[in-house]
Amino acid sequence: MIGYGFMGAAHSQGWRVAPRFFDLPADPELALVVGRHAEAVAAAAAKWGWAESGTDWRAALERDDIDVIDIVTPGDSHAEIAIAALEAGKHVLCEKPLANTVAEAEAMADAAARAAQRGVYAMVGFTYRRVPAATFARDLVAAGRIGTVNQVRASYRQDWLVDPGVPLAWRLRKELAGSGALGDIGAHAIDLAQFITGQRLGSVSGTLETVIAERPLPADTAPGEAATLGGSAGSGTGRVTVDDVAIFAGRFETGVLGSFEATRFATGRKNALRVEVSGTEGAIAFDLEDLNALEFYDRTAPADRQGFTRILVTEPQHPYISAWWPAGHMLGYEHGFSHQVVDFVTGVATGVQPTPSFADGLQVQRVLDAVERSAAHESIWTPVG
Amino acid sequence: MIGYGFMGAAHSQGWRVAPRFFDLPADPELALVVGRHAEAVAAAAAKWGWAESGTDWRAALERDDIDVIDIVTPGDSHAEIAIAALEAGKHVLCEKPLANTVAEAEAMADAAARAAQRGVYAMVGFTYRRVPAATFARDLVAAGRIGTVNQVRASYRQDWLVDPGVPLAWRLRKELAGSGALGDIGAHAIDLAQFITGQRLGSVSGTLETVIAERPLPADTAPGEAATLGGSAGSGTGRVTVDDVAIFAGRFETGVLGSFEATRFATGRKNALRVEVSGTEGAIAFDLEDLNALEFYDRTAPADRQGFTRILVTEPQHPYISAWWPAGHMLGYEHGFSHQVVDFVTGVATGVQPTPSFADGLQVQRVLDAVERSAAHESIWTPVG
Amino acid sequence: MIGYGFMGAAHSQGWRVAPRFFDLPADPELALVVGRHAEAVAAAAAKWGWAESGTDWRAALERDDIDVIDIVTPGDSHAEIAIAALEAGKHVLCEKPLANTVAEAEAMADAAARAAQRGVYAMVGFTYRRVPAATFARDLVAAGRIGTVNQVRASYRQDWLVDPGVPLAWRLRKELAGSGALGDIGAHAIDLAQFITGQRLGSVSGTLETVIAERPLPADTAPGEAATLGGSAGSGTGRVTVDDVAIFAGRFETGVLGSFEATRFATGRKNALRVEVSGTEGAIAFDLEDLNALEFYDRTAPADRQGFTRILVTEPQHPYISAWWPAGHMLGYEHGFSHQVVDFVTGVATGVQPTPSFADGLQVQRVLDAVERSAAHESIWTPVG
Amino acid sequence: MIGYGFMGAAHSQGWRVAPRFFDLPADPELALVVGRHAEAVAAAAAKWGWAESGTDWRAALERDDIDVIDIVTPGDSHAEIAIAALEAGKHVLCEKPLANTVAEAEAMADAAARAAQRGVYAMVGFTYRRVPAATFARDLVAAGRIGTVNQVRASYRQDWLVDPGVPLAWRLRKELAGSGALGDIGAHAIDLAQFITGQRLGSVSGTLETVIAERPLPADTAPGEAATLGGSAGSGTGRVTVDDVAIFAGRFETGVLGSFEATRFATGRKNALRVEVSGTEGAIAFDLEDLNALEFYDRTAPADRQGFTRILVTEPQHPYISAWWPAGHMLGYEHGFSHQVVDFVTGVATGVQPTPSFADGLQVQRVLDAVERSAAHESIWTPVG
Repeated sequence: MIGYGFMGAAHSQGWRVAPRFFDLPADPELALVVGRHAEAVAAAAAKWGWAESGTDWRAALERDDIDVIDIVTPGDSHAEIAIAALEAGKHVLCEKPLANTVAEAEAMADAAARAAQRGVYAMVGFTYRRVPAATFARDLVAAGRIGTVNQVRASYRQDWLVDPGVPLAWRLRKELAGSGALGDIGAHAIDLAQFITGQRLGSVSGTLETVIAERPLPADTAPGEAATLGGSAGSGTGRVTVDDVAIFAGRFETGVLGSFEATRFATGRKNALRVEVSGTEGAIAFDLEDLNALEFYDRTAPADRQGFTRILVTEPQHPYISAWWPAGHMLGYEHGFSHQVVDFVTGVATGVQPTPSFADGLQVQRVLDAVERSAAHESIWTPVG
Repeated sequence: MIGYGFMGAAHSQGWRVAPRFFDLPADPELALVVGRHAEAVAAAAAKWGWAESGTDWRAALERDDIDVIDIVTPGDSHAEIAIAALEAGKHVLCEKPLANTVAEAEAMADAAARAAQRGVYAMVGFTYRRVPAATFARDLVAAGRIGTVNQVRASYRQDWLVDPGVPLAWRLRKELAGSGALGDIGAHAIDLAQFITGQRLGSVSGTLETVIAERPLPADTAPGEAATLGGSAGSGTGRVTVDDVAIFAGRFETGVLGSFEATRFATGRKNALRVEVSGTEGAIAFDLEDLNALEFYDRTAPADRQGFTRILVTEPQHPYISAWWPAGHMLGYEHGFSHQVVDFVTGVATGVQPTPSFADGLQVQRVLDAVERSAAHESIWTPVG
Repeated sequence: MIGYGFMGAAHSQGWRVAPRFFDLPADPELALVVGRHAEAVAAAAAKWGWAESGTDWRAALERDDIDVIDIVTPGDSHAEIAIAALEAGKHVLCEKPLANTVAEAEAMADAAARAAQRGVYAMVGFTYRRVPAATFARDLVAAGRIGTVNQVRASYRQDWLVDPGVPLAWRLRKELAGSGALGDIGAHAIDLAQFITGQRLGSVSGTLETVIAERPLPADTAPGEAATLGGSAGSGTGRVTVDDVAIFAGRFETGVLGSFEATRFATGRKNALRVEVSGTEGAIAFDLEDLNALEFYDRTAPADRQGFTRILVTEPQHPYISAWWPAGHMLGYEHGFSHQVVDFVTGVATGVQPTPSFADGLQVQRVLDAVERSAAHESIWTPVG
Repeated sequence: MIGYGFMGAAHSQGWRVAPRFFDLPADPELALVVGRHAEAVAAAAAKWGWAESGTDWRAALERDDIDVIDIVTPGDSHAEIAIAALEAGKHVLCEKPLANTVAEAEAMADAAARAAQRGVYAMVGFTYRRVPAATFARDLVAAGRIGTVNQVRASYRQDWLVDPGVPLAWRLRKELAGSGALGDIGAHAIDLAQFITGQRLGSVSGTLETVIAERPLPADTAPGEAATLGGSAGSGTGRVTVDDVAIFAGRFETGVLGSFEATRFATGRKNALRVEVSGTEGAIAFDLEDLNALEFYDRTAPADRQGFTRILVTEPQHPYISAWWPAGHMLGYEHGFSHQVVDFVTGVATGVQPTPSFADGLQVQRVLDAVERSAAHESIWTPVG
């Protein structure tokens, strides 16, 4: 595993726990975690149970006893690591977003396509697909339970930037983060909407908004760096160069219209990824803040008994559930990372491309790019890729 | 009252009930209801308790014993009736939308402004402002309980057009209805968002969508008329010329960004008018399908006790409630029409312009128009009026 | 109408509104309202639109132009008025509880049985049966949609007595009110559970609790009366002689077990009448604080799609709804009183005994009495009646 | 760990995961799992990551490298193992219920008291106390946020016995399970209500009910055993000898009244452990089916802003949360087992008695026993212990 931030903890938990509940075709070992700071990465290795730690990710690629590279670094380093790993014959699991730019993502998708021909696979980590209620939503749509899709709504809302005292962290700087709410959480809304509907966005009309333009510099900002961050002179602040809010309309290739929103300013919404899909025969509504349930509306039921059914997605018949606890016993955020391990290891071990592939990740990147281009041109409708 | 459709029933109930619960400065009498078909309007008068019925609305304007004209006809006749009534010195209550075109609405607003100088008042019927939870939301925002507004979401979702068998009624023909979901229900979302925030939209970027392009002609369509309705030859269908779905981003004059949606294709949503306003100190969320409650988030509460509070807006301290039942006893859809009567009669009787005025109605009309213009130009940002 | 308190307002609204929405076989006129204080009752008549007011209810019984007596006085006067009215050949609608004692209720039921033989009908006002979602719950159970009933839960919770400053009103004195939470709101829970299941309670095991034993005397308490109210000497308080909380288990005649609770100390619950019925094939859950919806669980659905469906009971197929507004437009508390008028007038005019009859009211009274007897004997199981 | 059923999986997960997120004063190793069937327990050890497996729990007590015995066997073996382990100087974590009888539980509590004097600790596993929202509820009550408790409601409802085809498993036989819903899930409701309020039940009035009296024998029932199970002759069924439903009123030692229910027949309720505590200043409501949230009502808020606040208990300020994920990222059922490990290891390593102690477990057992005695005597009020 390359990287050891918040995502490192989540991925570690996935690798550790998945084999204890699922029968995997291969048995993962937590061999090595790599990071820049030797001491910190050693501490992470100890805490999360990795056998070794190191500071040179290229060295990892040379080891024969390592088959999989799991990339959880910030987006600006994904391309270099992933491409090198694939070329070294390692299977790659890479956190989303695939990259910070479309060009990087294209190079990664190309490398993945070449590697796949040699039986080496790459996958991008949109784990919310693997929340059982989300997977089940996809299953219902694919099985025709809501008929033909008429309309889609997807949003991902948080509120951690409402406080103007939140400092100018790397996530608020375009050169490091690529974009703001759009790429960080909007990407999840896009992926999930596409996953559940089985349809891809073809064009978008979008608006980006930075609500708070300047923020305090982090305490450890070097004086030289401060000068480059564009804040009002002497204010101790720097300019926010990414979006706080992204709103866009999207048209799927099928013609279906969707509305999308990603925001870090929705006061009181902590992790509200919601997708609602309306069809000719029914509808589904998913909410990550209520992740053990799926709302399902069946238009084919008798008129006086129609309504949204709150399905507790904890029955053994539901995706992934039979490996866990009895009905009615809740799963949490991290279980998606175990499911990701299950699907990734199964794909790799059985020679079947796991999804979402890098090509899928690239396509999301192109949607993000189209939103940015639309926003830069008065929200005019803009084709994806 | 001119007109006697569904809105006639609702207005009649408002006029009948309001004086029984509220102390009004004047005592309304249900004098006369006017409609095109003598027999049908007489039946309506009998059913709803109006003293007389008639077929000539101009005759009503000449009667000295009539002080108020309540207009509940379709939008294409509002301007003519309202302007004539105001010129005849009658106070006017006019259902929304104010008119089908901006030009008509401007003429009406002008007439209302002139009349107001003579102490004759006009008001447009956005009754959802008068659902106590919505009024209370406005009060909380106005009192600063959510601080400065950062972001707005408003949507009005229904599903009655999902069935392709729904015939091509007047509401689906632009020449009669002006627009589709946009004007019919989107207008409510716009008005309510502006009302609660106390802010006006300055520009928009919008998309309109007709999901089902052709629908069966109503059974009573004359052969000659059928030919003009543009359906596929011999199909017994006609073209839908209004939007089924309207999605738009809006920027308030303050710079605040909002997302808006109006749809008749949200399967399972029957009357889901929702407005969420996110501020620096809190948030409010209103849902017409849960109209006795308001969700309120207080960011100034201790961090471990923050959350959306479901306030049952049925306490005597809440707007309009003390006239009705004890705490915990629910109100319904129609109560807004009683509150409208209270506010209209109070304004008229005390010589204070009741709101929303025709100028307010015109401004909503201009927003609708801007959305249509934006939609016609690839969703480019378009200033309101 | 005899009486003009809070219930007088609700009944007046029912009489006034029902004929405007429903086609009734007879046309009710609001002829006369009777109360003790001439001035107050005259004001009530004016406010609620009754033609006349008076202070002598016996005089009303002698009037040929009066066919129906509607009794909304406190429970201790029900028996005398109702029996006299029935004997005078008047149809009687009597607010619940039928009476304060079983003996009175028996006399009333006897009088009603005799009158019914002459085509004169009596009905008791458990209006919550006529909330459409409650009626629909009964319909679903009766149609076998939840199979055979296995278990019942019913509770009615309010919180208006949590404040120790609430004075010793008549509702807190056994000699006037009969009982406390038990009779006032527990009676509704009992009636509704029996109505929805179509089963009657046969025995109970109950506990009564007075949480706050002494309360301030009302400001207008006469000095002589104060002395009789049993408070601590010189404290300005009196003893609460009714229950604040009633909890009981009940066994229906079918053997089904139910749990019941009535309380005025459930902080935050304003009007929470809830009934849940669990059956072999499904379940229903009703909540008066969410009165436009019914939760329905269908155990015959595929295992992965089971869940509680929130049915918005506002469709034209639902009980009483087609007379009102389009789907998704909410009804409120008072609509049950219109439905009561519809059912009462229809029964009376067509010669069919309307329900709940006085015999039904007597049976509820017997359940209340059995709970009190059980509570007085360490909660030992006690047969009803 | 002795035993390896469903609870073995949950405890294993707790032992495995806790040290990866929390800083523990001692580092647990998964040394040995013991069970009756060598092959099955070896498979469990392999799956869950225990170093060794064995079939002789007494041998484990003799090993110096084992400090802790974790008992997850059925209740009828708890006493023997736990007492022996404590006498062998091993710290003991024992699943609930502490034992099947009060006598056994007393012996265990005695042994634990003796061991504690030697610095050897025992704890019983009511893990739902350690769901963060439940712990936080206790904290709010202890901090006085709801004032003085007036009333309590606790219920635990499931529906897995609605199907009459569910066979006569050990949980339905009194000689093996001790009791039915009462001890299995009612014990949780009792413990949680006592934990949150900080009060103990002093007396109860209860009713037990077996809804389905006979069930099919399990396929592997030996012919000899079948004859002892009391079913109708030749039917292939046996008698259910435990309760399906338990309803009881309980009075806390403070005088506060509570209502309790445990049922396996609440159709549609999968794991609905709910506790609501009503106080003079507020209320809390917890629901295990919505375990990341706590409902809190603050009666000290302004009258027009009171309501139940849905607190998402995922903030770093909330109990246990800072060790896990960012705000808004949900936890699941199993996290309580990690928290249990944290609290147990911390207590043991620092020489502080962890709670709930065996004495606490004994007290719950006494409540269960009192309910059974009350139920056997027509529900008469019965003192605990």
